[in-house]
Amino acid sequence: MIESANSRFIGIHNSSDLQPLLKLNPVVDHNLFDLNLIPVTAKWLSVRHAVFHRGDFFVFEPFKPDNLMHVLHDDLLPAYLTMYKLCHGEMGECVRRWRPLLRSDSLPSPLAPLYAALWDNPPTLTGDLDPATPHCFERSHVGLRSDSLWYQYGFERPQSPLPTPYLQREHLDDFRAHLLSRLGATVGGGDPQPPQSGYVLLLSRTESRLILNEAALSAALAARLGRPVRRLALEETSLSAAAALAAGAHLLVGMHGAGLALALLLPPGGAVLELFPYGLRPERYRPYQRLCQLRGLGYRAWVNTDPASSVVPGPEATPDRGGIGHLDDTERQRVQTLQEVPETLCCSDPAFLYRVYQDTMVNTAAVSAAAEAALASARSRRRRTRGALFFPGPARHLTAQAEGDSRLLEWRPPVNAAPEVVSYRVWVRQGERVGEYRVRRPRLTVAAECGLCRLQVWVRTEVDGRPGPVAHETFELDEPPV
Amino acid sequence: MIESANSRFIGIHNSSDLQPLLKLNPVVDHNLFDLNLIPVTAKWLSVRHAVFHRGDFFVFEPFKPDNLMHVLHDDLLPAYLTMYKLCHGEMGECVRRWRPLLRSDSLPSPLAPLYAALWDNPPTLTGDLDPATPHCFERSHVGLRSDSLWYQYGFERPQSPLPTPYLQREHLDDFRAHLLSRLGATVGGGDPQPPQSGYVLLLSRTESRLILNEAALSAALAARLGRPVRRLALEETSLSAAAALAAGAHLLVGMHGAGLALALLLPPGGAVLELFPYGLRPERYRPYQRLCQLRGLGYRAWVNTDPASSVVPGPEATPDRGGIGHLDDTERQRVQTLQEVPETLCCSDPAFLYRVYQDTMVNTAAVSAAAEAALASARSRRRRTRGALFFPGPARHLTAQAEGDSRLLEWRPPVNAAPEVVSYRVWVRQGERVGEYRVRRPRLTVAAECGLCRLQVWVRTEVDGRPGPVAHETFELDEPPV
Repeated sequence: MIESANSRFIGIHNSSDLQPLLKLNPVVDHNLFDLNLIPVTAKWLSVRHAVFHRGDFFVFEPFKPDNLMHVLHDDLLPAYLTMYKLCHGEMGECVRRWRPLLRSDSLPSPLAPLYAALWDNPPTLTGDLDPATPHCFERSHVGLRSDSLWYQYGFERPQSPLPTPYLQREHLDDFRAHLLSRLGATVGGGDPQPPQSGYVLLLSRTESRLILNEAALSAALAARLGRPVRRLALEETSLSAAAALAAGAHLLVGMHGAGLALALLLPPGGAVLELFPYGLRPERYRPYQRLCQLRGLGYRAWVNTDPASSVVPGPEATPDRGGIGHLDDTERQRVQTLQEVPETLCCSDPAFLYRVYQDTMVNTAAVSAAAEAALASARSRRRRTRGALFFPGPARHLTAQAEGDSRLLEWRPPVNAAPEVVSYRVWVRQGERVGEYRVRRPRLTVAAECGLCRLQVWVRTEVDGRPGPVAHETFELDEPPV
Repeated sequence: MIESANSRFIGIHNSSDLQPLLKLNPVVDHNLFDLNLIPVTAKWLSVRHAVFHRGDFFVFEPFKPDNLMHVLHDDLLPAYLTMYKLCHGEMGECVRRWRPLLRSDSLPSPLAPLYAALWDNPPTLTGDLDPATPHCFERSHVGLRSDSLWYQYGFERPQSPLPTPYLQREHLDDFRAHLLSRLGATVGGGDPQPPQSGYVLLLSRTESRLILNEAALSAALAARLGRPVRRLALEETSLSAAAALAAGAHLLVGMHGAGLALALLLPPGGAVLELFPYGLRPERYRPYQRLCQLRGLGYRAWVNTDPASSVVPGPEATPDRGGIGHLDDTERQRVQTLQEVPETLCCSDPAFLYRVYQDTMVNTAAVSAAAEAALASARSRRRRTRGALFFPGPARHLTAQAEGDSRLLEWRPPVNAAPEVVSYRVWVRQGERVGEYRVRRPRLTVAAECGLCRLQVWVRTEVDGRPGPVAHETFELDEPPV
């Protein structure tokens, strides 16, 4: 922050006003990302030969750039929605104008293309800047919105979905379309529904948490669902190829893990089947279930209930991969005999890691049935999806006339609906009496309840049960009743 | 709202989601400005030969465009701050890009230049558009922020200041500078303080609420304050000339009324003296007092306490100018004998109007003394104004070493302050024990409280009583104490 007569620090009076506010990443209950702002003068900068960078910079810090779920959930979706607001939805202009500036020494290569894809300019990393001098950025926007986060990882309380009152399905659809087009991975011209002939995408983890009978599962799924099954191993596939595969898949099947974040790229109307190793309760681990719910995708979880089909981490496994060799005997025995992992905090509970890093020989019949149920739930969600936004406009040009003992009310139909489909609810108040009416035509005759008293009229339009706004007028009638 | 596959109605599911949200003017407790949005299709528009307007439109509805206070408080300051947020403070670009579109048939000529001044493009009025066809605007922003409103006019409860947690003095200074420069009325190159030789600006109302001895008051003020007094009658002066006069005035003196909204254009450090006719309690009518408080200007109110110096509205006065000929005898007598107007609602209370439309022969000595007090209060406010924003950065490169029975902590001073002016508060935790220290140099030696136990250190920098952020490190010491 440079101090001068023209500086404006709105809402900032001292360092504590900044301390809790500025975070470079919005992850819940994780405060690694605080940013220290300090005021300096222009002279301070010139004495130190500051480097000036021209342009508009979009600044944040990647949370965990080697994990697909974290990259999408903690960095790129928040970045996309922050830019959406910053540029009032003009995303083409936005990704041209704003250049990403990431506080990071380097980005791991497999997922780095995702960061590069969002903007026209490649990310600038703070690690690439000469640390010997201060750096000035002509214009910058710092930090990410947190209102798209749908999950907290359990740093302070067991992991759970977050309320997302702001996040709409359309945000996720737009983010998907943006990312796919930037990755050059658009499929099927953005059809709202996947073709009925769509394929099943079977996620294959190659290093841990394996499906030991993957080929048999693939065959069983193809037979049961009557669809081709394609295999995707993220470690062996380019990111844009993986994105294109997800973008065209009807159903995504895979073990619990970051690969399921590809659900963000499934076509609308698709579905996910998430597989859990023995001893884990799916209700406790819901990042992907919640994502499917937000996107309106079908979802089912399947958990292996047969310990004999499960292979626990071996003596060679490190603690972070579920190894338990470092535990004392009592603790090791406790972990081994637990039949169900209790609620734990992130990120190093040995009982959780021991179970989540099991390999599984899945029951192909049961998984295929669950896959069918996932597809069925997608179909029923499609049916429940509301139609296009429509409601009638207000009644217009409301008039009232006294005709003897009657009062004649008339108005014009709304501009945006055919007159014959519109009905009206009308409330008429004369003195203290209020009458309520329903009519199909834009007129109504009511008996006079009092002489020259004031007439108040409210008319609400309605088409197919969808109400429009209320029109309201007050009339002081000139002609007394006969 | 045009419906198509590419439409996005974020947060909107039916008409009631829009009804209470969209207001074309933010005035409190006044719902004239609701906007009916209705969905239509592109076909609907083409059938009706809609007119397309290219560009970015900034849409709102003027509240009361014939009154300076209302124009500034309800329309232009909210519009300025809405644009400030819309364009992230880049106001030059903002007023080029966004074109004002006002729902209005016409703007009264005296104040219309104010609306024209804010933007590069002159306002488009809905009254000038052909009503026979629909009109489409390529891009639009509808409505104004309400968080700059500092006053509510008493529609539902007696008038009173509003809380303005967001509004900062800098917003008002920026708005003033923007408006003055756009009106071509900049004075004195934007000096932060008015020259000590600054003049007094005496507002002269020419149609109502007169100061009957204006010339004598002018002479008394000049004699008492030793400054020239200039007279400003808004009805006789161009808006840019009036703005330039206000921009250079040291003290603004005038009867309660919209002209005092010129306080928005006074230089920082200026002052206002507001005069009230007999029978009004200044504490009940505080729009200008509150404005002065927000801008950090001096302020005093003076009220005429001598009924003999007051001329009440005559029999020719209409009710809206304080006439009471239309009242029945009892009510008329009540109004005439009330010595103080009670709290009333806006906008037609006869007792209030009867008193506020009095002309006054002011006590020139008392008013001059109040003027001196207003200037003195401005001086004391200037002294209280805080200095520039400054606080030290954090301590850097915090290290700890075990040296026998001691622990040596060291760090580097903050980058933005000379080392000799910085002091440090340090908290050291060893096991359960926490020690607190104050040091002038970036190092501290503490006695070891436990052997290999963990050492946690917090360091807060401080310069001239201004604290910086806290640096924190945890150390697991390698070398056990001897």
